[in-house]
Amino acid sequence: MNSEHFSPYRADGKLYGFVCVVTGATQPVGKAIVTELAAHGAACIYACSSTPDEPYAQLAAEVNKAYPNTKVIGYPYKITSEENTLGLIDDVLNSWGRLDVWVTSSGLLGPPSIAETSPSDLRKCFEANSMAPFFALKYAPPAMAKTTPKGSYPNAAPKDQAYGSIIVVGSVASTYGGCWGPCFTMSSHAALGVVRAGVSVLKGSGIRINCISPGQIDIGVDLKGFDMRGMSSQLPPSSLQGPEAQKAIVGLERAGLPQEVGRVAGFLASGFSSYITGANLVVDGGASVMNPLTVPI
Amino acid sequence: MNSEHFSPYRADGKLYGFVCVVTGATQPVGKAIVTELAAHGAACIYACSSTPDEPYAQLAAEVNKAYPNTKVIGYPYKITSEENTLGLIDDVLNSWGRLDVWVTSSGLLGPPSIAETSPSDLRKCFEANSMAPFFALKYAPPAMAKTTPKGSYPNAAPKDQAYGSIIVVGSVASTYGGCWGPCFTMSSHAALGVVRAGVSVLKGSGIRINCISPGQIDIGVDLKGFDMRGMSSQLPPSSLQGPEAQKAIVGLERAGLPQEVGRVAGFLASGFSSYITGANLVVDGGASVMNPLTVPI
Amino acid sequence: MNSEHFSPYRADGKLYGFVCVVTGATQPVGKAIVTELAAHGAACIYACSSTPDEPYAQLAAEVNKAYPNTKVIGYPYKITSEENTLGLIDDVLNSWGRLDVWVTSSGLLGPPSIAETSPSDLRKCFEANSMAPFFALKYAPPAMAKTTPKGSYPNAAPKDQAYGSIIVVGSVASTYGGCWGPCFTMSSHAALGVVRAGVSVLKGSGIRINCISPGQIDIGVDLKGFDMRGMSSQLPPSSLQGPEAQKAIVGLERAGLPQEVGRVAGFLASGFSSYITGANLVVDGGASVMNPLTVPI
Amino acid sequence: MNSEHFSPYRADGKLYGFVCVVTGATQPVGKAIVTELAAHGAACIYACSSTPDEPYAQLAAEVNKAYPNTKVIGYPYKITSEENTLGLIDDVLNSWGRLDVWVTSSGLLGPPSIAETSPSDLRKCFEANSMAPFFALKYAPPAMAKTTPKGSYPNAAPKDQAYGSIIVVGSVASTYGGCWGPCFTMSSHAALGVVRAGVSVLKGSGIRINCISPGQIDIGVDLKGFDMRGMSSQLPPSSLQGPEAQKAIVGLERAGLPQEVGRVAGFLASGFSSYITGANLVVDGGASVMNPLTVPI
Repeated sequence: MNSEHFSPYRADGKLYGFVCVVTGATQPVGKAIVTELAAHGAACIYACSSTPDEPYAQLAAEVNKAYPNTKVIGYPYKITSEENTLGLIDDVLNSWGRLDVWVTSSGLLGPPSIAETSPSDLRKCFEANSMAPFFALKYAPPAMAKTTPKGSYPNAAPKDQAYGSIIVVGSVASTYGGCWGPCFTMSSHAALGVVRAGVSVLKGSGIRINCISPGQIDIGVDLKGFDMRGMSSQLPPSSLQGPEAQKAIVGLERAGLPQEVGRVAGFLASGFSSYITGANLVVDGGASVMNPLTVPI
Repeated sequence: MNSEHFSPYRADGKLYGFVCVVTGATQPVGKAIVTELAAHGAACIYACSSTPDEPYAQLAAEVNKAYPNTKVIGYPYKITSEENTLGLIDDVLNSWGRLDVWVTSSGLLGPPSIAETSPSDLRKCFEANSMAPFFALKYAPPAMAKTTPKGSYPNAAPKDQAYGSIIVVGSVASTYGGCWGPCFTMSSHAALGVVRAGVSVLKGSGIRINCISPGQIDIGVDLKGFDMRGMSSQLPPSSLQGPEAQKAIVGLERAGLPQEVGRVAGFLASGFSSYITGANLVVDGGASVMNPLTVPI
Repeated sequence: MNSEHFSPYRADGKLYGFVCVVTGATQPVGKAIVTELAAHGAACIYACSSTPDEPYAQLAAEVNKAYPNTKVIGYPYKITSEENTLGLIDDVLNSWGRLDVWVTSSGLLGPPSIAETSPSDLRKCFEANSMAPFFALKYAPPAMAKTTPKGSYPNAAPKDQAYGSIIVVGSVASTYGGCWGPCFTMSSHAALGVVRAGVSVLKGSGIRINCISPGQIDIGVDLKGFDMRGMSSQLPPSSLQGPEAQKAIVGLERAGLPQEVGRVAGFLASGFSSYITGANLVVDGGASVMNPLTVPI
Repeated sequence: MNSEHFSPYRADGKLYGFVCVVTGATQPVGKAIVTELAAHGAACIYACSSTPDEPYAQLAAEVNKAYPNTKVIGYPYKITSEENTLGLIDDVLNSWGRLDVWVTSSGLLGPPSIAETSPSDLRKCFEANSMAPFFALKYAPPAMAKTTPKGSYPNAAPKDQAYGSIIVVGSVASTYGGCWGPCFTMSSHAALGVVRAGVSVLKGSGIRINCISPGQIDIGVDLKGFDMRGMSSQLPPSSLQGPEAQKAIVGLERAGLPQEVGRVAGFLASGFSSYITGANLVVDGGASVMNPLTVPI
């Protein structure tokens, strides 16, 4: 998509002037989302991560260099803290006067087997995967409903009507079980529950909330060497299977790329999805609708 | 269904000799489930409830009188406690030598509005609605896989092969939002997640796990007078709407009865559903597949 | 389920006095349904099949012998004919004065590959798999709503209130694609559409309509030798995979049996499912909620 | 979305050089799709319609004027004809050397009540709503897999790898029943079946197929005056309800606009949805996940 002819991205693009929050921003999928939002002209992106020593600086530098009109702000953030969430929203409004997009993309996989899953593991996954979206649903909309006159803040465009899009990046574990453990399936279901509950909560506000459920995403890391018991902190299990398995069970015969999730987030963030809310966008190369029996006939 | 001609219930019926656990047993839906299991010949039912002063004695007396071959044991039980769950299973095996059916029917509705929903509310609902099923999935199967020779225990029939059915009574809030609050939608989704994760967990064990998602169930209580903020402890929101609303939005034009949920539990408990696992049985009088626009054409 | 202790079936059972129609009655799944309805005490079953030379006599003889209180009537029937459907209903009402249960279980698989699928194949599958349920939905309810006084007809019990249950036996092809061809997926989806449309159509009538979606059912025939191009006339593709594949992809690690579909039909036919309508009961041993990636971890 | 700042559309945009087919192109939703594809830089759009006297000329003139780099070709086309489909593909390849996007957006509503629905009505709806997508799935992919060297055709960009996106515009009637008749629910389900079957059919080809399921779309026509029995030929039933009903049952409290469906089609047509296939994008303002009971609490 980078030929001389194809140039859908531009500084005055579909997210022009938007102020965005992205959690999990230093993970592969989060990075791809930040980059995508910047490419479409977002004025500002708060790149949040719960780990204090994550390489914000590098991400911000890279994105700022490629998209000089977008300001990327590394922001240390504990997603399971209500106070942190409120503090972040205050910062956003004080600095920019508006909030348009909130993407939660931080996930916790949890132990793979039920035997090793403790109530404490469950609580951690629940907080990481579904309480963070809950906080977004509870606190972001009033900020998103705020309008701002022209010129009152640097960079951000004036906002003359309420607009907001909340995007919960979950997993296909929101609809079935799999190679991941019960923690992940349960909390991914709960994350989808936030989206579905959100339609009522947001009724009449004009603000939308949607879920992205990625399937196998290649995050460039071979998880086989990981100590899975150690609560690997990353998005939907990827690289768990070799290319042969992917070929057998995925319609497109390959894992997805973080950018392919990022692009869907860009679509949902923008007005191009203006009548989509409460939806679960499955981004899995067709795996979930292709019965495994299909292959060897 | 009580004519002179219709007698599907009998002491040597489809649950003959089964040993069962039912949580939430003193609530209307739980009571109906206990009664249904007894009617089909269950040898023993542990009627569990988290509230110490619930009227176990009355329930046990009523059911024992109607079905003298079934022993109903009132059992105080904190569903969110791992220790309590393990203790209960020990008691069951020590007394009866087998475990066949585990029904979780205790639910917590939570606050109706997001403004009044705190992280603590979320945790309570999550524990009540999805951690209890998780404990059942983690600890009941080894006990269900145990076989027992003839005559070694009173009442319970000999068990010569592994058999087990776990039934999670949730809500239609497992698939969409509604008049209930975000807590309930989120934790009902998570409960369905236990069921879906359970198919992998139980693979090859022969033990099954399924969800029942009741819609509007008339529990004989007018909830309008309730302080909903007070975390009413009961199953899917019922009686929230008057008969006119039910007529407009439910295919069968009425709320369901607790017995109608109980009967589905009886089906899932028995071998009559032997190839059903991982399923979500929606018991809602057709409300979820009938678009509201249908009515006034 | 045939121990000395287990006797849920009886002549005065849960379908006592019911008059039933079953299409596809001479196929393995249809036979199992007829037998199940008889075992629960149905007064009469019209065992319908579109192929004139099917062995009705044998089926009727077998079932009548095992369940002498049930009359099984072999009935040649073209399911795609509106006239045949109306004629059958007339016969039922003239002979028995009531109609309670209608099960469509005749299916057509169609060609396995799209290259070999013609518009004519599509039409045939559509007619067999979804027009037959449509005729049931259109014409059976008025007959089901008819009540009859005591004693006016032989065998059938008096019917003092409207009762009816329509059961569409489809396939998991109602929710995803698979090793079967596009014809089968398309027409299985359309059959589920009849059920979902049916809730509105039947609103307030008290009559219910539900779908059973079986997964891999072992019909005792090795389909590998079949000329699949030849439009094999049978229910969901079974025996297409060997036991190893079943072990890998089905939670219960085996194909289902026709009786296991039959029992679900018995449940849906009876008052035990009285608040279930518009539902899709997936009977697939858990295959559809277990991601194939689950196995090799 | 047309402020001085927002300019996501451009002649060298995300569909630059694409050759597209759109059926139902003279209906409101079809027009919006044609316009959207043109706005993103499509080289050529075959605007197809089954009605010979439809105002192609006007549509082509309008779009060509607004987007001079896109050639819109009005094309009379009987969607239920295999020959017409093959002829159209021949024309496309002969004139442009490539085919990238195929959108079926022609729909037939059918009679609203089952009493008035004949087998002939069913066949017509089935052909219009699901056989047309089937023909696209069967015949478009080989054409989409064709690559073309630079400069060999006017306008269309060179295509150096297989690319294709098939988009079936259906209805929320693909997942539940409603105010429309059984014809529409059945054939909308079957159309979704084409998409789900399509993942297997297209496995490994790189070509994608997806469904858009619009809810209430305001097509600018008050259908209340229509003779619905007369088989109105248009997309999902809209304007059937007044603004009060929309406010009560739609999360966004309004009907959608044809452009809002068009934009989703533009997303699915482009590489921005490159890992989405087999999906059903519900575009309904949240109506399907918001239980009607939600409103009056």
